[in-house]
Amino acid sequence: MINVGVVGAAGYSGVELIKLLLNHDEVVITKLFGNSSAGNFIEEIHPSLKGMLSIKVEQFSASLLEDVDLLFVAMPSGQSMQVIKDAISVNVKAIDLSGDFRLNDQTVYSEYYKHEHAATELLGDAVYGLSEWNEDEIKNAKLIANPGCYPTSILLALLPLLKENLIESTNIAITSYSGTSGAGKSLSQNMLFGEVNESVRAYKVGDHQHIPEIKQYLEKFSGVKTNFSFVPHLLPVTRGIYTTIHASMKDEVTEAQIISAFKNNYSSAPFIRFFGTEIPEMKNVVYTNFCDIGFKIYEDRTLVLFSTLDNLVKGAAGQAIQNMNLLFGFDQTEGLLKCLKKKTLQIK
Amino acid sequence: MINVGVVGAAGYSGVELIKLLLNHDEVVITKLFGNSSAGNFIEEIHPSLKGMLSIKVEQFSASLLEDVDLLFVAMPSGQSMQVIKDAISVNVKAIDLSGDFRLNDQTVYSEYYKHEHAATELLGDAVYGLSEWNEDEIKNAKLIANPGCYPTSILLALLPLLKENLIESTNIAITSYSGTSGAGKSLSQNMLFGEVNESVRAYKVGDHQHIPEIKQYLEKFSGVKTNFSFVPHLLPVTRGIYTTIHASMKDEVTEAQIISAFKNNYSSAPFIRFFGTEIPEMKNVVYTNFCDIGFKIYEDRTLVLFSTLDNLVKGAAGQAIQNMNLLFGFDQTEGLLKCLKKKTLQIK
Amino acid sequence: MINVGVVGAAGYSGVELIKLLLNHDEVVITKLFGNSSAGNFIEEIHPSLKGMLSIKVEQFSASLLEDVDLLFVAMPSGQSMQVIKDAISVNVKAIDLSGDFRLNDQTVYSEYYKHEHAATELLGDAVYGLSEWNEDEIKNAKLIANPGCYPTSILLALLPLLKENLIESTNIAITSYSGTSGAGKSLSQNMLFGEVNESVRAYKVGDHQHIPEIKQYLEKFSGVKTNFSFVPHLLPVTRGIYTTIHASMKDEVTEAQIISAFKNNYSSAPFIRFFGTEIPEMKNVVYTNFCDIGFKIYEDRTLVLFSTLDNLVKGAAGQAIQNMNLLFGFDQTEGLLKCLKKKTLQIK
Amino acid sequence: MINVGVVGAAGYSGVELIKLLLNHDEVVITKLFGNSSAGNFIEEIHPSLKGMLSIKVEQFSASLLEDVDLLFVAMPSGQSMQVIKDAISVNVKAIDLSGDFRLNDQTVYSEYYKHEHAATELLGDAVYGLSEWNEDEIKNAKLIANPGCYPTSILLALLPLLKENLIESTNIAITSYSGTSGAGKSLSQNMLFGEVNESVRAYKVGDHQHIPEIKQYLEKFSGVKTNFSFVPHLLPVTRGIYTTIHASMKDEVTEAQIISAFKNNYSSAPFIRFFGTEIPEMKNVVYTNFCDIGFKIYEDRTLVLFSTLDNLVKGAAGQAIQNMNLLFGFDQTEGLLKCLKKKTLQIK
Repeated sequence: MINVGVVGAAGYSGVELIKLLLNHDEVVITKLFGNSSAGNFIEEIHPSLKGMLSIKVEQFSASLLEDVDLLFVAMPSGQSMQVIKDAISVNVKAIDLSGDFRLNDQTVYSEYYKHEHAATELLGDAVYGLSEWNEDEIKNAKLIANPGCYPTSILLALLPLLKENLIESTNIAITSYSGTSGAGKSLSQNMLFGEVNESVRAYKVGDHQHIPEIKQYLEKFSGVKTNFSFVPHLLPVTRGIYTTIHASMKDEVTEAQIISAFKNNYSSAPFIRFFGTEIPEMKNVVYTNFCDIGFKIYEDRTLVLFSTLDNLVKGAAGQAIQNMNLLFGFDQTEGLLKCLKKKTLQIK
Repeated sequence: MINVGVVGAAGYSGVELIKLLLNHDEVVITKLFGNSSAGNFIEEIHPSLKGMLSIKVEQFSASLLEDVDLLFVAMPSGQSMQVIKDAISVNVKAIDLSGDFRLNDQTVYSEYYKHEHAATELLGDAVYGLSEWNEDEIKNAKLIANPGCYPTSILLALLPLLKENLIESTNIAITSYSGTSGAGKSLSQNMLFGEVNESVRAYKVGDHQHIPEIKQYLEKFSGVKTNFSFVPHLLPVTRGIYTTIHASMKDEVTEAQIISAFKNNYSSAPFIRFFGTEIPEMKNVVYTNFCDIGFKIYEDRTLVLFSTLDNLVKGAAGQAIQNMNLLFGFDQTEGLLKCLKKKTLQIK
Repeated sequence: MINVGVVGAAGYSGVELIKLLLNHDEVVITKLFGNSSAGNFIEEIHPSLKGMLSIKVEQFSASLLEDVDLLFVAMPSGQSMQVIKDAISVNVKAIDLSGDFRLNDQTVYSEYYKHEHAATELLGDAVYGLSEWNEDEIKNAKLIANPGCYPTSILLALLPLLKENLIESTNIAITSYSGTSGAGKSLSQNMLFGEVNESVRAYKVGDHQHIPEIKQYLEKFSGVKTNFSFVPHLLPVTRGIYTTIHASMKDEVTEAQIISAFKNNYSSAPFIRFFGTEIPEMKNVVYTNFCDIGFKIYEDRTLVLFSTLDNLVKGAAGQAIQNMNLLFGFDQTEGLLKCLKKKTLQIK
Repeated sequence: MINVGVVGAAGYSGVELIKLLLNHDEVVITKLFGNSSAGNFIEEIHPSLKGMLSIKVEQFSASLLEDVDLLFVAMPSGQSMQVIKDAISVNVKAIDLSGDFRLNDQTVYSEYYKHEHAATELLGDAVYGLSEWNEDEIKNAKLIANPGCYPTSILLALLPLLKENLIESTNIAITSYSGTSGAGKSLSQNMLFGEVNESVRAYKVGDHQHIPEIKQYLEKFSGVKTNFSFVPHLLPVTRGIYTTIHASMKDEVTEAQIISAFKNNYSSAPFIRFFGTEIPEMKNVVYTNFCDIGFKIYEDRTLVLFSTLDNLVKGAAGQAIQNMNLLFGFDQTEGLLKCLKKKTLQIK
């Protein structure tokens, strides 16, 4: 049993984390931190937690972490750095859900995130928490940089194919659609219901902060230099990401090889469900930690990949818990899918 | 640990039941039954179950219930009766999610359900599974008639006030809005996305089959004759019911008495969250077994009550599991809200 | 051909007005006014107007109204008063879409609108623009107070029955659901997509500013003192209001009398569609100036009324144009439903 | 003034056509045809038309076309052919909204549409009704094959660039998202509200019937052989298509040339709104005949194109009326955008 704290308890990722942690057998939530929410009981901020948890939110201070074994930080990029720095300084392990510790290069960071990095000394310690591709590093980390929602959906689909050299590494066309919870709860007119409902729009075209993250980890885990164009869109749903990727198959690569690449790489990954040439649907993954992946080969040997996940779960809070499970030696699925631990399970 | 079977595994309530049961520590799903789905593995019918459960759906027969301790029947009204009859005949306890065993009077049944009752000999044995109001009977039942979604939202809100004689029992105006999953998965043009989205309509006005159910149990549990008008509406959301009730307060009744009535009656009910004069929101209850209730007193002493729940959980599969928990002596919240069993919980 | 100006061109009602006016044969838009939007071309603020209209938005001043025959004011309540005062002072007729000139009693106004009235001298001149019930006054008005969206849906349904003495005037239970455009474009966290989507909530229960408006005009046009409870709810759709009313029928009143009341009162009302005992649906009225009304009688002689309209059209901009048509002697349907003027029309 | 008939009046495209035609100054609807709807008044089938049009729907027969100048056929592909054949045989001009007359090659037709072509003798007469690219042929047509919704959004975006040789003609990656009305009103479980809402899925991947249509007309109007992969997705909105295209810019092509290509080709096209490097939004085009187009150049010289339109208007009924206007010499915008004909208009 470990004690955990959550910083940023008032946001969408924060409350998702709390709900998942409340369902986890090995964890006690002992501390909640926030800024504008400090001083209130958590169920006053999120009435959905009424009857489930009643802890007062506090202003963060490293001095309050005495009994905390692990700190989840669900703050906006830029605000996260200082909190992490303080936590690490008192030897508390941390999982950061922001983008602050995902990029190696602080110059690229400041270009995409529009502010300077304030804890560059920790960049070398940060371990990228893509659970299925970085398990060994995660198990020994003191600071885990939890992946972005778009990168998770894209990396999980492309890595097996790039690593096994089955597709061209250039001219990869990536189109992603995300529900609005990815944008968090901050106020902006274009996130009002009347502006999002019954509409669709691309946004941050060519300058989304996840572009360098995707590039860095595509290349790190596959060992291949890549070239891609990523276009994010806003979708009128609350949760979920749907990513469609067009890539060119290498000469003589067969459908069977594509299938093998996924089966080999994800044989022991409980949260990756490979659908082969069936098309995944977003509704099957929302409110779960699954990432569902499928593909189709076109006549001209374009490979089209589909990848869908819940941006708040596998794309944020769920993967963070999966990483905590790896870090503390719990069953990887604990708190995320109880049935996997029950002997009733009869997976084909 | 008990073995359970589910009849009607292909429908919305069926899959909701399966998902909740997979999360329950005391239950093994050993049998799934269906009609058109028989012969297929359950994850072929519901790809959302891929990686979680892989059992072949069978055509129902009482002879297959040998090792089954409890049978959940999630079939449409009319089809449920025969299955229940067969299960009871081989001494298997059953929880029926349809309307087949909720009404005492078979004449009323055939008037509202438009077909004859085929198992009237069991009507006397059926116990109405409104968990918070019928616990003693539920604990000793062999056949539980799980309440309808609308009746659950209405009974839970009105019963404390009628029982304590705080409101007039006539001229109760009930307006309910429901998501579309309440209508199940059967094909009808007016349930197509394009017909439901960005719209609202009342339906079955004056002849909805839940009218006699509401009346029978309002009167059974409060001991008061009532007179109400109930108007159901279809809402462009997948899950959730929101019920608004206008009633007249009795002379000299105070706000404090209203509050006491709820606090007294639900002091030990983990799934009823009483919000006092704050207004509940549907988003706080979807995907949970909670029913959130609030009220407001108008200048002319009209009492307006609000009650909201997830029609697939507290209004169907969740309450069915709550009833199973009562029936088998499990913790009432098992499989429905793990945090309530954890010592971290500090409810105010 | 008349020249019109619009104040508040950046809001939802403003742009709706502009689009309808662009489709009107007798009108030229010559002036657009706004606050934060001043200095921009209107199609920069509303890209939906690109290719349709290109006028620069100006800061309002009465001195700019020289060639304006009619001013539409689509500002929030409180801000509207001063603009109207200025317009009237230079003898420009005005139609106010806010609530500033709907209530006779400035004390009630300040109680519900939470600020003082700053143009009480004009209250006597304001004519309530419920087109179907106040045509004579509207034709001679200099200042028209365009009705609220909820009141329009409620008054149109109840007035024929109250006026003809067919229902009890007390214990009228009114439940309304509205799309989010009714709340306008102002920023508030609870209007974000993620807070509204897949949810429902009642709001301003017992203190909504439309309560005194409904009461004043129910009584003015029917001549009967009334007593009702009105509960507004927020719906996850962009446009549309759906109102459900429970009332008690007077003794011996028949269904035929109910039907006659509607037929008599709306025989020459092109925008009221009476559905008898069929249930209206919101999707049939959105993007139109229609109000669809139906009813059902319950066994206990409760009359349930249904009324639905588009809050931005019949509940705001459309009715404003209908009032302009009456005021300037244009065909009542001009700009709102061209087919009614075409000889192809063969209404049963 | 011409007389028109509509076949397929009960479907989504049919009712959209009727509503637009009711708003057209030069047209009288004299005949409505349908199959299951025959014998009913149109407003019984579509209550949204109540008060607007009251014509009895008839079973189609060429003998009933005596006074009809133009027949719109909004039937499913396969059913349309015979009706068109009959109409042409009695010298009535026709606009077909199905896919039956869009493809030159009947072998390709039967491969993608899964049935044989029954009117191959008319294939040579059919004129493809992409209004902006085929005006001369449309003006002299007797049979117009109205374009598909996806092809319209794709062709309008790609043609200027292919024609002017600014992008590579291979490896074009096309991702489109469509609202559900594109699928029409036919019953299928996966079009139920509960299956579409809060979800996204790709469908007909690699074998959608619009693939050969896109290819044929990309090449016909640009003169260039192309190679593309098109992936359609279903979106939880009622109306609207959003298309995102990744293509490679040719060497030394500049942003200015891209802009010129659009400006040159669409200078006299009232319904194409070119947004340059601003990103179009679906909400700006729904309920209009506009197609909004924008683009962005990525660092690696990938050109990303955005194109959005209303699948029922510019993607079906609206473009059909635009084609009728061209065919009969009416103003191209008649019935589609009245303001363009008013002298108030001051386009920049």
